[in-house]
Amino acid sequence: MELLFLGTGSGVPAKERNTQSIALKMLNERNEVWLFDCGEATQHQILKTSLKPRKITKIFITHMHGDHIYGLAGFLSSRSFQGGDESLTIYGPKGIKNFVMTNLKLSQTHLSYFIHFVELDQESGQLFEDEQLLVTYGLLDHGIPCYGFRIEEKKKPGTLLVDKLREDQVPSGPVYGKLKKGESVQLEDGRIIDGRDYIGEPIEGCVVTILSDTKPCPSREKLADQADMLVHESTFSAQEADLAKAYNHSTSLDAARLADKVNAKKLLLTHVSSRYVGSLAKQLEEEARTIFPNTQVVHDFFEIEIK
Amino acid sequence: MELLFLGTGSGVPAKERNTQSIALKMLNERNEVWLFDCGEATQHQILKTSLKPRKITKIFITHMHGDHIYGLAGFLSSRSFQGGDESLTIYGPKGIKNFVMTNLKLSQTHLSYFIHFVELDQESGQLFEDEQLLVTYGLLDHGIPCYGFRIEEKKKPGTLLVDKLREDQVPSGPVYGKLKKGESVQLEDGRIIDGRDYIGEPIEGCVVTILSDTKPCPSREKLADQADMLVHESTFSAQEADLAKAYNHSTSLDAARLADKVNAKKLLLTHVSSRYVGSLAKQLEEEARTIFPNTQVVHDFFEIEIK
Repeated sequence: MELLFLGTGSGVPAKERNTQSIALKMLNERNEVWLFDCGEATQHQILKTSLKPRKITKIFITHMHGDHIYGLAGFLSSRSFQGGDESLTIYGPKGIKNFVMTNLKLSQTHLSYFIHFVELDQESGQLFEDEQLLVTYGLLDHGIPCYGFRIEEKKKPGTLLVDKLREDQVPSGPVYGKLKKGESVQLEDGRIIDGRDYIGEPIEGCVVTILSDTKPCPSREKLADQADMLVHESTFSAQEADLAKAYNHSTSLDAARLADKVNAKKLLLTHVSSRYVGSLAKQLEEEARTIFPNTQVVHDFFEIEIK
Repeated sequence: MELLFLGTGSGVPAKERNTQSIALKMLNERNEVWLFDCGEATQHQILKTSLKPRKITKIFITHMHGDHIYGLAGFLSSRSFQGGDESLTIYGPKGIKNFVMTNLKLSQTHLSYFIHFVELDQESGQLFEDEQLLVTYGLLDHGIPCYGFRIEEKKKPGTLLVDKLREDQVPSGPVYGKLKKGESVQLEDGRIIDGRDYIGEPIEGCVVTILSDTKPCPSREKLADQADMLVHESTFSAQEADLAKAYNHSTSLDAARLADKVNAKKLLLTHVSSRYVGSLAKQLEEEARTIFPNTQVVHDFFEIEIK
């Protein structure tokens, strides 16, 4: 899994940072990509990457501010124009369906695929679960309903203990595939062996937490607990704590304190105000590192593997 | 006056051409800029120019397809965020007010200025008139209501005939300013002369015609008659006339035939399909020139003075 940041700015687009969108790439794991928020010109950013709109199967909208949703109608139209025909699910606050459908209807846009809407109306809950993943959400504190998301990979089967097989003189071949599935097999020398004896411990999955616009609030802790990758907004630097509070946003230190408290592995700062142009954004990173050393401030097209 | 093309593509954004928007710059004449259509990421294109969103006072929307309107909400929000506080008028088809207001309301966007909406519902008519300009519109033929616009500069006062003044031995000085206004003045030698005798013929104003998505239709002729600058869509080349007809669009030859018939001075081709990448777009220009030599295919950020 990789995170690819398509827009890392705040409020309005600037030359350096577009408005919000993050792609969670799971091409090897599931042959699909999920999008978190879709600010204006997200599809333009996608044009500069190798992402294929038709591979995007789920869009999670954190809240209804324009810098998080104004690119939805354009993205959905182009996905259709470019041959996307598989259905797509949009998770978001109440009103997201009305927003999307009004835009499509008034622009007489007819999509080649079906959109399934899931409007969130609880303080927290489960959004999605299958064999591989569990997605939960929780209400943050941003003045209007705004949700954070936790994507939890389930335990993966352990690897085949090849060294132990060699030790027991089990010859390699198609039999290894069966053993890996935990099946019992009979060897040419007559022995019957059980695959379960040759598979290592299940491997812990990764946890990615995406916390968009919010001021510090307790609900973040459950969402971010032990996260391998914690994405947190950092609209302002520590010097602008008053502004952050007034606009329901966070500072770099707010983000770092949470990362430290929940024992996250890595903290990525995004949603950076346009006042921190160029190298000024590094200031946010340096501040956060005084509390949580493994912090990085991201930029548009920043990509990172999650492990 | 200058035309600055912010987006010259068709349907969906491509790397080379953004969706539709044209700026009519009248900074010297009126200290304002008018926008024709506002596809997604028009505000991003503006960021790459010297245009100031607050100077944009009127937006004309040709029709409600997404590639002409998906940038409106973002542009309007950013104009407010960047300190624009003068009211703005949006002219467009029925539904444009609902489209804009729904987007702003659902995204909880509060603008610092007032928007005046003028929804068009006649086949043709007058939109705006003052001392300098007359703007008329007419219904085109694009499957859904789509309007073409004609911006007509009124006659400008003639220039002061300086050679004639010198011939009559009128000494230069502040008196020239009064004469230019058509006033009578008494000279130091006692002569009384009338400014109107020293002003040349009124100067014809320019005509700009913007014909967006349409297949050939008679209403174009009145709008484009004798235009100094005729902007016409050319989604397809002459070889794709069947596609053009099927999708209610024009070919380069359709545009050229009109320019020739109405005796336009210059033809600018825009709304180019993404199939004509790079130098292929020149094909449209070459085709059109076989009928109307003074044709140019435009690209994003192409700018031209109107005279």
